Amino acid sequence: MTIKIAVLPGDGIGPEIVAEALKVLDSLCTDFGLAVETEHALIGGAAYDVHGTPFPQETLTLCRAADSILLGAVGGPKWEPLDYSLRPERGLLGLRSELELFSNLRPAVLYPQLVAASTLKPEVVVGLDIMIVRELTGGIYFGKPRGRRINEHGEREGYNTLVYSESEIRRIAHSAFQIARKRNKRLCSIDKANVLECTELWREVVIEAGKDYPDVALSHMYVDNAAMQLVRNPKQFDVMLTDNMFGDILSDCAAMLTGSIGMLPSASLDKNGKGMYEPIHGSAPDIAGRGIANPIATILSLAMMLRYSFDDAVLAERIERAVQTALDQGFRTADIASEGTVEVGTAAMGDAIVAAL
Amino acid sequence: MTIKIAVLPGDGIGPEIVAEALKVLDSLCTDFGLAVETEHALIGGAAYDVHGTPFPQETLTLCRAADSILLGAVGGPKWEPLDYSLRPERGLLGLRSELELFSNLRPAVLYPQLVAASTLKPEVVVGLDIMIVRELTGGIYFGKPRGRRINEHGEREGYNTLVYSESEIRRIAHSAFQIARKRNKRLCSIDKANVLECTELWREVVIEAGKDYPDVALSHMYVDNAAMQLVRNPKQFDVMLTDNMFGDILSDCAAMLTGSIGMLPSASLDKNGKGMYEPIHGSAPDIAGRGIANPIATILSLAMMLRYSFDDAVLAERIERAVQTALDQGFRTADIASEGTVEVGTAAMGDAIVAAL
Ligand SMILES: CC(C)[C@H](C(=O)O)[C@@H](O)C(=O)O
Ligand SMILES: CC(C)[C@H](C(=O)O)[C@@H](O)C(=O)O
Repeated sequence: MTIKIAVLPGDGIGPEIVAEALKVLDSLCTDFGLAVETEHALIGGAAYDVHGTPFPQETLTLCRAADSILLGAVGGPKWEPLDYSLRPERGLLGLRSELELFSNLRPAVLYPQLVAASTLKPEVVVGLDIMIVRELTGGIYFGKPRGRRINEHGEREGYNTLVYSESEIRRIAHSAFQIARKRNKRLCSIDKANVLECTELWREVVIEAGKDYPDVALSHMYVDNAAMQLVRNPKQFDVMLTDNMFGDILSDCAAMLTGSIGMLPSASLDKNGKGMYEPIHGSAPDIAGRGIANPIATILSLAMMLRYSFDDAVLAERIERAVQTALDQGFRTADIASEGTVEVGTAAMGDAIVAAL
Repeated sequence: MTIKIAVLPGDGIGPEIVAEALKVLDSLCTDFGLAVETEHALIGGAAYDVHGTPFPQETLTLCRAADSILLGAVGGPKWEPLDYSLRPERGLLGLRSELELFSNLRPAVLYPQLVAASTLKPEVVVGLDIMIVRELTGGIYFGKPRGRRINEHGEREGYNTLVYSESEIRRIAHSAFQIARKRNKRLCSIDKANVLECTELWREVVIEAGKDYPDVALSHMYVDNAAMQLVRNPKQFDVMLTDNMFGDILSDCAAMLTGSIGMLPSASLDKNGKGMYEPIHGSAPDIAGRGIANPIATILSLAMMLRYSFDDAVLAERIERAVQTALDQGFRTADIASEGTVEVGTAAMGDAIVAAL
């Protein structure tokens, strides 16, 4: 069976890092009999430049038809002056929403080779391995009503709506419980139930869903405390379950604890496990085109794809081990370089990983 | 002129730590001629237990009549099962809202004596001195409509509204610019303008307000990136301006960078500079009544009161220096104790600071 992958390089360093992931994919096809068909499409600013929209219909059509999606990154200062509806981010948000990719998995893992890159003391982060499960198609990102208006005092006013229905909460809660079950069986659900009614319902429904998982230890934490605990003692967490907005904030905080955001992949899955895979980091316009970006997060996103969408843990681990080998050999891109290591560019890092496959 | 201070010890460790701040205040009255009248009132769970409400009318009346308010902390597991409207937090939120204490100042300062207490590497945090200016009476904390309903599919649904008018944004922006002016003249405003229309208006109005402060360098950062940058390189920040919800999360994260959340005071001011002063930390029900809580954040809140509400920088600095002296003498409460220091209880720490005044 041939797997169809839609490839969306996007903006900034997107094309460079995606190219390295495709090298890895090619090598898996040649050497390990993986059967894959890839087709490229535009998204974000790159799509706007050609089609006048960050999310062209043909990109959506391709993504719908594909078995899986590999994305680079979107955005950049060039498109910031554009109207809201035309910005690169709308492409990404549109894709998440149209394909109902509600379950966003964001691991924050510390690579033993990169302990020195963390700003935290080694004893606080060595062995760190958190999985953040973020709701991705609801909450304040998509809630209506939203927009701007003139209020009764004649002033400008901006408004957004945080809204969740029980079914939206329930399905992401089940995702999180199932993932916790495969890990250390501890799930911490994040809310602000002491202030926001919407997240009070969140807590209630998570507790209800938890009845199906008596083997998973469920706890709850206010979002402000969670931000604090991530800094104080991040290893207390196994799986964290968050809404869309809190997950955006906490997952970036957690990723930075590892000191190597250029290393972290992510998956965004629909209810059938079809998914979009992308690095956690952004499009880094400042270093785009210079051949120095770290392709590892994108390569590890490919590994996540094999594991989650194609149930091929063997090839996924092969990629992950190859990344470890390249690191053990001392190869580092600029963002993770330290004394005594060999600084290489994007392509050389990709080559080293392919060689280690 | 006699200053009237309303004293609201609240719950948990609140009464213990407020008692030490009052010792310091007494000493200032006796030795430095400060003329103060204090009157106590109940708030939070303590008020609920007596009056059946976390925010009794007589507490509000006292606070309105007072020149300034000193608060301990509210909340605890005992009151968590209560209905939303009766929880201790409603007392605090009610006070903020009724007195229009819209400007919440939350310093995150690393004490040189406590570098070892931070989970971050010394080079990342030594010299850290951030002031977070958080909008405190608007946004999603107070926005309407809010609540729970049954949606058109017959499901439970929870909702809250993030809403800001330009005048709400403008007044907090001016607070922040004025504070930046007295510090290092750099202001970073936090938003999620790429996703939320409400915070797009936030950015617009902050830019408009900034025209009056050409000497202050204004920048903007998305909230997810801010959470990341606080961990990566917190010293890049001078003053951070946030809405209510983002400020709740980021200020706790920033506070924890210092490793000594038991040390950090806060001020919540109205448009005339009248304020409520309280430690950043919570009511710590787990250690309440044991005489081991750290009173320093509350004592420093008193210093903030003297500086911001009574323009008495001299006495404020006297308190701050006394705290430094007690630390230099090696006194530490349990939360900040380390090898080679003298562990003391709440009262002994208060005494040491009074002695150093
Ligand atoms: C680019 C932006 C719309 C996006 C988000 O806020 O979800 C990004 O920050 C992320 O976390 O994937
Ligand atoms: C207790 C709670 C309502 C409060 C808030 O969310 O504002 C607290 O977390 C704070 O930051 O002062």
